[in-house]
Amino acid sequence: MNNFTFHVTTDIRFGKDRLNELPEVLNTFGKNVLLVYGGGSIKKNGLYDAVMAQLTANGNQVTELTGVDPNPRIETVRQGAALCRSETIDVILAVGGGSVIDCSKVIAGAACSEQEPWDLVLSRSYQGPAIPLVTILTLAATGSEMNRGAVISNLETKQKLGVHGPEFLPKVSFLDPTTTFSVSRYQTAAGSADIMSHLIENYFSKTEGTDVQDGVAEGLLKAVIKNLPIALNDPTDYDARANLMWASTLALNGLTGSGKGGAWSCHAMEHELSAFYDITHGIGLAILTPRWMLHVLNEETAPKFARFAREVFGVQEAVPELAARMGIQKLYDFFASCDIPMTLPEVGIADDTHFAEMAAQAVQFSSIATNAYVPLQEEDVIAIYQDSLTPSTYL
Amino acid sequence: MNNFTFHVTTDIRFGKDRLNELPEVLNTFGKNVLLVYGGGSIKKNGLYDAVMAQLTANGNQVTELTGVDPNPRIETVRQGAALCRSETIDVILAVGGGSVIDCSKVIAGAACSEQEPWDLVLSRSYQGPAIPLVTILTLAATGSEMNRGAVISNLETKQKLGVHGPEFLPKVSFLDPTTTFSVSRYQTAAGSADIMSHLIENYFSKTEGTDVQDGVAEGLLKAVIKNLPIALNDPTDYDARANLMWASTLALNGLTGSGKGGAWSCHAMEHELSAFYDITHGIGLAILTPRWMLHVLNEETAPKFARFAREVFGVQEAVPELAARMGIQKLYDFFASCDIPMTLPEVGIADDTHFAEMAAQAVQFSSIATNAYVPLQEEDVIAIYQDSLTPSTYL
Repeated sequence: MNNFTFHVTTDIRFGKDRLNELPEVLNTFGKNVLLVYGGGSIKKNGLYDAVMAQLTANGNQVTELTGVDPNPRIETVRQGAALCRSETIDVILAVGGGSVIDCSKVIAGAACSEQEPWDLVLSRSYQGPAIPLVTILTLAATGSEMNRGAVISNLETKQKLGVHGPEFLPKVSFLDPTTTFSVSRYQTAAGSADIMSHLIENYFSKTEGTDVQDGVAEGLLKAVIKNLPIALNDPTDYDARANLMWASTLALNGLTGSGKGGAWSCHAMEHELSAFYDITHGIGLAILTPRWMLHVLNEETAPKFARFAREVFGVQEAVPELAARMGIQKLYDFFASCDIPMTLPEVGIADDTHFAEMAAQAVQFSSIATNAYVPLQEEDVIAIYQDSLTPSTYL
Repeated sequence: MNNFTFHVTTDIRFGKDRLNELPEVLNTFGKNVLLVYGGGSIKKNGLYDAVMAQLTANGNQVTELTGVDPNPRIETVRQGAALCRSETIDVILAVGGGSVIDCSKVIAGAACSEQEPWDLVLSRSYQGPAIPLVTILTLAATGSEMNRGAVISNLETKQKLGVHGPEFLPKVSFLDPTTTFSVSRYQTAAGSADIMSHLIENYFSKTEGTDVQDGVAEGLLKAVIKNLPIALNDPTDYDARANLMWASTLALNGLTGSGKGGAWSCHAMEHELSAFYDITHGIGLAILTPRWMLHVLNEETAPKFARFAREVFGVQEAVPELAARMGIQKLYDFFASCDIPMTLPEVGIADDTHFAEMAAQAVQFSSIATNAYVPLQEEDVIAIYQDSLTPSTYL
């Protein structure tokens, strides 16, 4: 196990009927609120009205920034940072999923920085101050509600890049499973694939002796695998939504990654799919992950893949490589059983036109060529993209 | 899943060679340090010298409080609180295991309170201020390094009681696995039994729909079951010690208990063993836990016990009650294989002289009679104590 610091101070308010705590939370920071949200789904499900009722009763001055896209854009960050300055915002209230929260984090930093926002993202690490951020989560997926990372897209330069900052950590996050009742079948499955990918990316690492992290990851994976089908079958099953929501947070708050080294392979490759084709992040991850697993399966990695198969999917096979393949097949079949499209053409990526350019960027903007569980060069990435054009089997 | 708040702000510095960070940490709070430790093991293993070298170089004014007992006494709390006042202490540095940290927490509160220290403990909940606490953990066991609880004993009144306080949470905790290399075989096993008991107490709860919490608990239990024998066999195995240490922290920082209700049955019963006979807490828990499990096993609880057997010990049996018994047997055998004495006479409790009085207190000072997974009355507690007088089998 590697040395690590774990210091995750976000105050999590988990459960239903807790929005009455919002005024007390916001008053800690001030009255001028920038309310950030996405495409208006919170207006349909009543959350917008419930939040505004609290803010109005509390006498908050509210500035709204709406229309944050999935794969949030640098233009929105610029717009939000300008609003923070012109309206002397005290606190940002992000109401939405990972896109809204990620966008709000970078707005919070950019508003306090002299750097041009895209330069701030390109630096990949922002050490300066930020406006305090409070979140109300509406999608179980990215874990952004309890970590210091954000991912921003620049469609102009065809880049989708992660940036971290110590001050990006939300101060308080409200996690109410009922806010996810209205999430569509497709987005519920995509969000869960994202959670599972975070766990899998952390799980497969060269660092030895991390049974605690790996055991926690296995437990969270099993919780998602059990509860996602329940939520798809009954979108208002509270406990299923609660387990997916809390799993999303714990999957990427440092619990399963601290003490382990390495680079995230599938995320580096998926960011290029989203940057070039603007596809749903979790779907891209679900498509790539089993192909990546097969690509890096070898004599050395087989025992860890066999552990994954045994502990997560209950595979009993004793021969490591065979057990490993059975685990990969079960993961693929699980995604497919949740109606996730499992090939690139199904999400509008019909051929390999941009694969070489995307592979070059995936390697350039990450450390997968040197630091990954199994290092990946451009030709590896292209092979994994190619393999994703058609359905796969692993046995 | 129940509503919960998760807000655990302790800054964990995990790994070896991090004591050079101590001065910067202490300087946040001030120069006057109360150094609290136990029976002198830190003088034997060199940790005392290493800490004092940092404090001296940093120009700290150090007051020492030594001789904190396992099952820390209220007299020591009184002594520490008086020192904090007379020496105008800025920060308490606890160097030790759960006893030292628990004692330091209540000192930190009592020093800022008008309450007589034992009255503060009897209140079970201290809402007032406390002197900032920094810990250097030397035993993987209680989880006190990252939570708000403390347990204090009063040998005069034969009471051992838990008390919580929001300000008891350590500000920074240093977790260096190498500081546990010199922990004896017996204490290593006892500490691990304590970790496992925390996980088991949280696991068996009446609250439904908690797959995340239960999956995390299963993963941590497996990590302990795998790594304890390694550490017993080679006390200087870094990764084994690291896994036990990080498991101890995560087992009781709210991760596996938040969102679940209930009262801890085995802890309530064990506190009486320690209060009356001053035995090692973890050993008492190891002795009681399988007996308690059998006592509360019934048609209604069998499925959860079967899940425990399947997920933690890999039991394949399909019939729930039989699987449950196999799991209990495996837990008993695991403890025994780690040379934990598994009957009360082996730890000096030869007969049932005090069982009625202990059972009355166990019920009086907890909510096990109303709120436990399976509620326990005095006669249940006596039966479990009685059953602990002789070896047990479960199949």
